[in-house]
This record gives sequence, structure tokens and C-alpha cells, in this order.
Amino acid sequence: MAESASALGLRTVVLAEHPDDSATGVAAEVLAGVPSAADDLKALAARVGVVTFDHEQVDLDLLADLERTGTVVRPGLDTLRMATDKAEMRRRVQAAGLPGPAFAILPAGGGGGGGEAAVAKVEAFAADHGWPVVVKAARGGYDGKGVWPVAGPEEAAEVIRRAVGVPLLVEEQVAIDAELAVLVARRPGGQTVTWTPVETAQVGGVCREVLVPGRLDPDVVAAAAEVGAAVATVAGAVGVLAVEVFWSAGRVLVNEVAARPHNSGHWTIEGAVTSQFENHLRAVLDLPLGSVAATAPAVASVNVFGGPDGADPLARLPEALAVDGAHVHLYGKAPRPGRKLGHVTVCGDDADDVRRRAWAAARALGTPMMEGR
Amino acid sequence: MAESASALGLRTVVLAEHPDDSATGVAAEVLAGVPSAADDLKALAARVGVVTFDHEQVDLDLLADLERTGTVVRPGLDTLRMATDKAEMRRRVQAAGLPGPAFAILPAGGGGGGGEAAVAKVEAFAADHGWPVVVKAARGGYDGKGVWPVAGPEEAAEVIRRAVGVPLLVEEQVAIDAELAVLVARRPGGQTVTWTPVETAQVGGVCREVLVPGRLDPDVVAAAAEVGAAVATVAGAVGVLAVEVFWSAGRVLVNEVAARPHNSGHWTIEGAVTSQFENHLRAVLDLPLGSVAATAPAVASVNVFGGPDGADPLARLPEALAVDGAHVHLYGKAPRPGRKLGHVTVCGDDADDVRRRAWAAARALGTPMMEGR
Repeated sequence: MAESASALGLRTVVLAEHPDDSATGVAAEVLAGVPSAADDLKALAARVGVVTFDHEQVDLDLLADLERTGTVVRPGLDTLRMATDKAEMRRRVQAAGLPGPAFAILPAGGGGGGGEAAVAKVEAFAADHGWPVVVKAARGGYDGKGVWPVAGPEEAAEVIRRAVGVPLLVEEQVAIDAELAVLVARRPGGQTVTWTPVETAQVGGVCREVLVPGRLDPDVVAAAAEVGAAVATVAGAVGVLAVEVFWSAGRVLVNEVAARPHNSGHWTIEGAVTSQFENHLRAVLDLPLGSVAATAPAVASVNVFGGPDGADPLARLPEALAVDGAHVHLYGKAPRPGRKLGHVTVCGDDADDVRRRAWAAARALGTPMMEGR
Repeated sequence: MAESASALGLRTVVLAEHPDDSATGVAAEVLAGVPSAADDLKALAARVGVVTFDHEQVDLDLLADLERTGTVVRPGLDTLRMATDKAEMRRRVQAAGLPGPAFAILPAGGGGGGGEAAVAKVEAFAADHGWPVVVKAARGGYDGKGVWPVAGPEEAAEVIRRAVGVPLLVEEQVAIDAELAVLVARRPGGQTVTWTPVETAQVGGVCREVLVPGRLDPDVVAAAAEVGAAVATVAGAVGVLAVEVFWSAGRVLVNEVAARPHNSGHWTIEGAVTSQFENHLRAVLDLPLGSVAATAPAVASVNVFGGPDGADPLARLPEALAVDGAHVHLYGKAPRPGRKLGHVTVCGDDADDVRRRAWAAARALGTPMMEGR
């Protein structure tokens, strides 16, 4: 986002917990602080025209205080509440008549009466929808964390017992034929653009690759785009909204919503006329949104993860950059096995060819293979 | 360059004279200082693995000292000497059998014997090549500064009298049918890539627009590419070398050489698979160079200049971003009438269409019209 801001001549001020956080190397100004501290947020607000986000681990009550004292926060609180609370998101998607998995909201977990009531509610839900079901933390989960598939009442009770004080919901376990991500950018006045939905491959809840276009029928892709744009309207989004959807037994189902530029949209840096980062900035500044047309018939983007040897992918740039057309992005994060450290995008004419090249560069950087590849 | 470095996970340390210099907003680290002070250069060298440049106003003797003490300076001194001294450049281009305007090297200007000898040499040169001729400062000129067309001996004497202590050369005045710029990136081992030569339009020695491909015959473009790559070899370039050439009465003539990413190559950010900035970084780090293939059949890039009203183009982003496909780059420089403040690139299928749109966005940002448009 800071790279895009620089191109437009905009100054980015970043609130960073650690002096080596990724954005500190490219922001115009760095404030040391955390988004859970009122004073840190106030210091940030005093330096900028608009406050926006690259993650959702932000204290919404403090943000609400900022908004009340005149700071422009985009996306706004209403959108952030929906994006940070799965129960709220499911409720609002359902209320708008948009498709999602069946779900029920549970009392917070932990021992005692709340836990027992939650288990009972899971059992009743499973009676309607069948085991297994999926218990989820309504808040704080990401990349597969806070998601627990449970096969029966005992497993449900165990999950709920451990989730002390965590608001929970239960969902039907959906047979996933494919996963798509729909990226939408929306201005305050409601102008909306939708990039072509992409096919994503997740392993263990973590996105490994993004294919553009995916291998699904154009009708499915069009249906996903429509659902994504509708969710952005329901959310009252300003900026980029990423809607992850399942293609399941002939249905498009809303899975997750993120109110920020998203891993599934990194391909847009080279693969679309306007990237998710630039359109996020344009949207939160209420500037005209840019074209989201693709720049090539086929784009593949593969995430770079730390390999088991803990090597720094930066040291392996020579091998990766030798791959024709490989756009390597490294985030400057300390390497750890399994940590997401970057991504590689390749644009071209042939879907198999760009996927092969993107994987070749990602593997050269130390990324372990994905099962099935 | 710092934006590209960020994408690759590289940290940029910039030596900046003023705290609001463009690169300070996007570099990982900013050192206050000037490239004419030995201590400032040493402080920079101590912080980085490779020293490179975004302008040529650097003290070459101090750089030579740095090199001697083990700092990696790329491009190296030999290339910088050629790029910063027009007399040296003309000599080396000629010695390599490459085409350029006829020239003669003059004694330094100013009054007294040196000045008289210089005037005599101009007269002898004009006797062979005809009036008018062009007197140039060998060092320190850019964007049309340090270039004086003279119609006869009196004008020559006046120019030479004023150029106290300035090393000069005289060149034939070339009838310019078109101007092209050839961008080359070269690694230490000699690997070279050449972007497709572009047609440039200069007004008053300043580049106003870049058209890719230009409107010249493919044979001319191919000849220009060959000359550009040959100059890079002659220069022993490492990094990006920009070679400006004239198309003149059926000849391709080397005009100017710059040993750094260049205004004529800004179109590569969106218009080529790998931008001049990324390939410059790859080259000076001795990493494999990226594909220089174009991403679209037609690209136009128009420079943004401060208009007579002194308005900040940043305030006019809404109008510029409303132009379909306009990639706006603003450099964060204080607006002044006539100052180069940014550029706009548009990629597409039709040369006239992309040129029209790039101009529309540049004009929206306050750029005065170019004569003939």
C-alpha cells in the first residue's frame, strides 16, 4: 500500500509495533505504537488525513472514539464490525438474502452454564444439518486459526470448554468443490468496481496459490462477482473488501470477509490495470477508482513460505529472478518455517504455463511444495 | 527505484540533501548529506552493500576514493566518466565506430588565450561542417542547459567568453527528423537487455512525451536498439543506461548518454514486464535481469509540469484519476511553474488513444499543452 501511495505522491504514516515491521521500510513516517492503545491511535490520527488498515487486529471501541472526535476512519466502524465478527457477518449476509452456510450463534465457550448451553445448541444444530459441523471463534481468527471441525458432541464439548470467553458460532460443514475470492473496491458514494473473481487453493486454512481466471465455469465466476459486490454494499465498505466464497454442490456461499487489501488480490499488482492497493487508497481518499481490467489472459500468484531450513528467501533471489517473467515480492519479514514471507506473480497467455513458472520461482525461494503439485 | 526495492524486499538508504527530497518518503533510511562531501559519501557507503545513483551530479574523485577503499559503486567510475563528460562520451562512441554528430573538443571558455583558441577552433570546425554549429558544456548540463546553438563567429565568441573555465565541445547542428531513447540494462558479467526504443518529443531540451512504439519504421527502431546496446558495452555499463539518439537524414546518431534510470524509461513501470527501476536494481546487485517485453501494444507516457498558476498537481488527482487507465506518478516535489513534477502513463491497444488519454490526465494535473498538440 505504501508503494502505491509513493507512486501517487501520497505520504504514508504507519503505526508499527516493531521497528522492523514490513511497512516501516517504505512508509514516509513511522510511529511506534499499537492499535490497542488510545494514545498511539490519537498520535496517528493527528498526523494523517485518513486512517486505514492492513490488518484487522484493531480495537474497535478506540476507533469509535477516534471517529467521534472527527478522525476520518475508512473503512468505517460498521464495516469493520462485520469484517471482524463472523457472527455479525453471517447475520448480515443472511439478512440481505445472500447465500452462506447454515449457522447458529453460540454462547461464549468455557466451563459452567455457558459452555453447556453452547454444546446443547451445537447438538441441536447438528440434528438439523448433520455431523460433522464446524465451530468457529467469531472474533480473532485468521489463516485457519479459530476454526475447529468437530465430528460429534464430545469433540464439540472439548472445543467449547477450551474456548474460554470466546464468542462462538457453529456452521454446517460445506463440501468444498472450489474456493474463490472476490475483490471489490468501493468509494464512500457507493461507486464499486469488482476485479474478476479468482480461484484460490488453501492448505490448512492458508492460501497457497491464486489463479486468474480460475478453472470454473464463467457463470459461476459471474455469480461469485455478483455476490461479492452485494456483500460490499451490505457491509457499506469503503476501500477494498475481499469476499472469500465456496463453490459447493452448485451453490456459491459466502465464507469470509476481509475489509482491506487481501492476499488473494496481490496478483492485481501486475495482473490488473489498477492494483488492489492503489484502488484501496483511491477509495479511502474518495478519488475515482481505476480500471480493474486484467493485463494478461492468465495470471498465477503463489505465496512464498519459509521452508523447513529457515533460509532467508532474499538470499535465493538469484534463482527466483532467473524464472522468466517472475514478479517477486518479499515482505522483509524474518524467515521462519511456514511463515508467509512473500509472493510471486507471473502473467502470460497460458494458465498452465504461468502457474508452472510462479511455482518454480516460489520453490526457488524456499517455499515447500503444495500437496498435489 | 525505492518502490521497486521495497517490492523485492530490499532496503534502500538514500543520501538526501533536503529532508523533503522525493526519495525520502519511500526509502528505508535517509542520510542527510550531499554527494560532494567525502564524509557524507563514507557514511552512505558504511550503510549499504552497493552504491548507485539517481542523478549524475556526483563528485567522481570522491567516488574513486570510495571504490579504492572497497565500496561497490555501480555503475563504476569508468561508466560515470563517460556519462558525465560529453567530450569523453563523443570520443569513446567515435572510437568504437558508432555513429554520432561530427564534433571537436575545445579548450575551456573564458577570456584570454584559451577563449581565442576555442573560437578559432569553432571557426575551423564550421568551415568543414557549416554554420550554425552547437557549442556544449562537456560537463554539468542537463535538460537543455549547457547547450548553445551559435549562428556565426560572433555568437560563438560570446558563448565562449561567458563559459569561464567550462570545458567545451562543438558539434554539427543536426537536422532532427525524430528523437528516440534506447534503454539498456547490463549486468557486471555483460548480460544485456534492451527495451524497445521509444520516440520522445522534447521541447526546449526537456522531454514532454514518450511513445511506445514510436512512429518510425521498424528498421530504424532496430538500428537504434543495436546502437544503444553497443554504447552500453562501450561504456562498460552496470545498471540502466539510457542512450538518446537522433534520427537524422537517414542516420541514427548518438546524442546523449545517462548512466541511470531515465525519464524516457518511466513508461516501463506499467508498460514492460520489468521496469527500468527493477532491472537497474537487479543489475547493480548482479541478479538475473527481467524480461523487457512490452505489456501492451501501445504505451504513452507524458511528463507532468507545474502550470503557470503554481497549483499542486496532488490537489488535481480527482480529475486525472478519472481518465480511464491513467497511471499517475507524482514525485512529491514542491510545485513551481515549469518544474517536472511527475508523469502519467497509459497502456492500451491504439497509439492515438493512449496518447490522448495520457495527455488528458497530464493536462488535468496542470501540465501546459505541448506546441502542436
